[in-house]
Amino acid sequence: MAELYDVVIIGGGPAGLVAGLYSSRSRLKALLIERGLFGGQIVNAPKVDNFPGFPHGVSGTELGELMHRQATAFGLEVRTAEVTGVSLEGKIKEVLTDHGSFQARAIIIASGSEHRKLSAPGEERLLGRGVSYCATCDAPFFQGKEVAVVGGGDTALTEALYLARFASRVHVVHRRRELRAAVLLQEKAFAELRLSYVWDSIVEEVLGEDEVNGLRLRDVKTGGSSRLDVQGVFVAIGLEPNTAFLKDKLQLAPTGHIPTSTRMETSIPGVFAAGDVRQDSARQAVTAAGDGAAAALGALAFLRA
Amino acid sequence: MAELYDVVIIGGGPAGLVAGLYSSRSRLKALLIERGLFGGQIVNAPKVDNFPGFPHGVSGTELGELMHRQATAFGLEVRTAEVTGVSLEGKIKEVLTDHGSFQARAIIIASGSEHRKLSAPGEERLLGRGVSYCATCDAPFFQGKEVAVVGGGDTALTEALYLARFASRVHVVHRRRELRAAVLLQEKAFAELRLSYVWDSIVEEVLGEDEVNGLRLRDVKTGGSSRLDVQGVFVAIGLEPNTAFLKDKLQLAPTGHIPTSTRMETSIPGVFAAGDVRQDSARQAVTAAGDGAAAALGALAFLRA
Repeated sequence: MAELYDVVIIGGGPAGLVAGLYSSRSRLKALLIERGLFGGQIVNAPKVDNFPGFPHGVSGTELGELMHRQATAFGLEVRTAEVTGVSLEGKIKEVLTDHGSFQARAIIIASGSEHRKLSAPGEERLLGRGVSYCATCDAPFFQGKEVAVVGGGDTALTEALYLARFASRVHVVHRRRELRAAVLLQEKAFAELRLSYVWDSIVEEVLGEDEVNGLRLRDVKTGGSSRLDVQGVFVAIGLEPNTAFLKDKLQLAPTGHIPTSTRMETSIPGVFAAGDVRQDSARQAVTAAGDGAAAALGALAFLRA
Repeated sequence: MAELYDVVIIGGGPAGLVAGLYSSRSRLKALLIERGLFGGQIVNAPKVDNFPGFPHGVSGTELGELMHRQATAFGLEVRTAEVTGVSLEGKIKEVLTDHGSFQARAIIIASGSEHRKLSAPGEERLLGRGVSYCATCDAPFFQGKEVAVVGGGDTALTEALYLARFASRVHVVHRRRELRAAVLLQEKAFAELRLSYVWDSIVEEVLGEDEVNGLRLRDVKTGGSSRLDVQGVFVAIGLEPNTAFLKDKLQLAPTGHIPTSTRMETSIPGVFAAGDVRQDSARQAVTAAGDGAAAALGALAFLRA
């Protein structure tokens, strides 16, 4: 027989950890399942200076540890396992993992999303040392420096325009000759003098020893290789919510994100979503944390009703 | 001529301060207007142990100061003034205060809400020393103790049921003979053995030197006075959003709260709401903080469009 919990939380980033804190502090029998490190995407950030309460900044790893310690202080159970499926019909719901299955009266999905990778050498090694997936998070660290943004969609141009407020020059590297971004956004981008474009090009390697100092690019038309000197590279080629295990189980947006009410309710009563995985998330650690608290209080109200 | 800002933020609690942090960090010319202390309602909490990142808890005053310092570190302007009115039509909006008026391309309303007070002697003096307006925040501090909840509506019973998970006894003090709360909630409450009721009674005084040790009650039918020994009193007689200055200016819910989308948009483009003042807020410091970040990023996107 699978063990029965009041709430099972899927994902151990800020959304899941705060959902766990609020659930266990409300005396619910709560289990959090995370497949990797606690803290979610922030653990990749050497310095987070926009999480409220830390005026001098805090490392992502430390913030993740603080949240994890706080969440478990009130009795939250945590397990390392990969969620492989769910069963959401019925009063008792079930979460299937590679390490057994768990039953729950309510479920909070905080499984996050993943930035699509360049899959180029140097990208992983230099993550947080010039390689970033979030301009809103990291742009201020590139004050007066030259950076590249990889991508040609709305997100890439939005990130490039944001970076232009800080960096001395922003090179938009795109694999095609034309941008995919909305026309209005393109007009804004073309009007911004600090932006320049490298067309028909992909990143073959992120260069640098301890910090990024350039990119090796390949021209996809000619096959020629070139070097672009930059101190930062922002990868904006897409974001994928971790919702594969929810397919046909829950209403999902075309992007794979989970639509919710302003109270974090999904299409199924008793099932809540929080953080990056939900539609319209602002994709910040603090918004995910807020979502987690709201989802846990929503679950508490659902269980009481 | 009133000074023109990109964003004017009304209110300096967690929602406003985080909106200010995100706005100024995004290089927007931002002004935050607060009439009293920075930090909002949390400054009344001697210990906050559910704000993520602080596993040992933090005093509300300290958390408010940390957020204030962080918000102003990136160039946020702050002013002490009382907002008396707004003009939201047109591209340039205006915020009127008792210390001059300010123009803005976007506005974030984070003016919070206020718990209706008992207006009894001792209530203010013992705030945070046994007097509380939030069971979700403070119930764990009353483990094994006797407490009172004042009120007879949904919130009062919800708070009482929540407190029954911690306190040894919860006395519901209500000025009438019948509860106003939903019938289902009443049934739950009557089934909970740790709850008892003091009918037809109002609180005349909150008793105690440094900490609450009782209530002086008056029977409104007989006029008789009695003492109830409790170590905590939770006041749940209503919550009023600070939206008087918005009447007829913005779509408000019947309760006075501001309805928003999941991106914190109100009924007027360029006007956002965050924190306790918005409808469906979970009314926690961390959810307000998350709202503030989302509203600021929404304002940024609005200004760029």
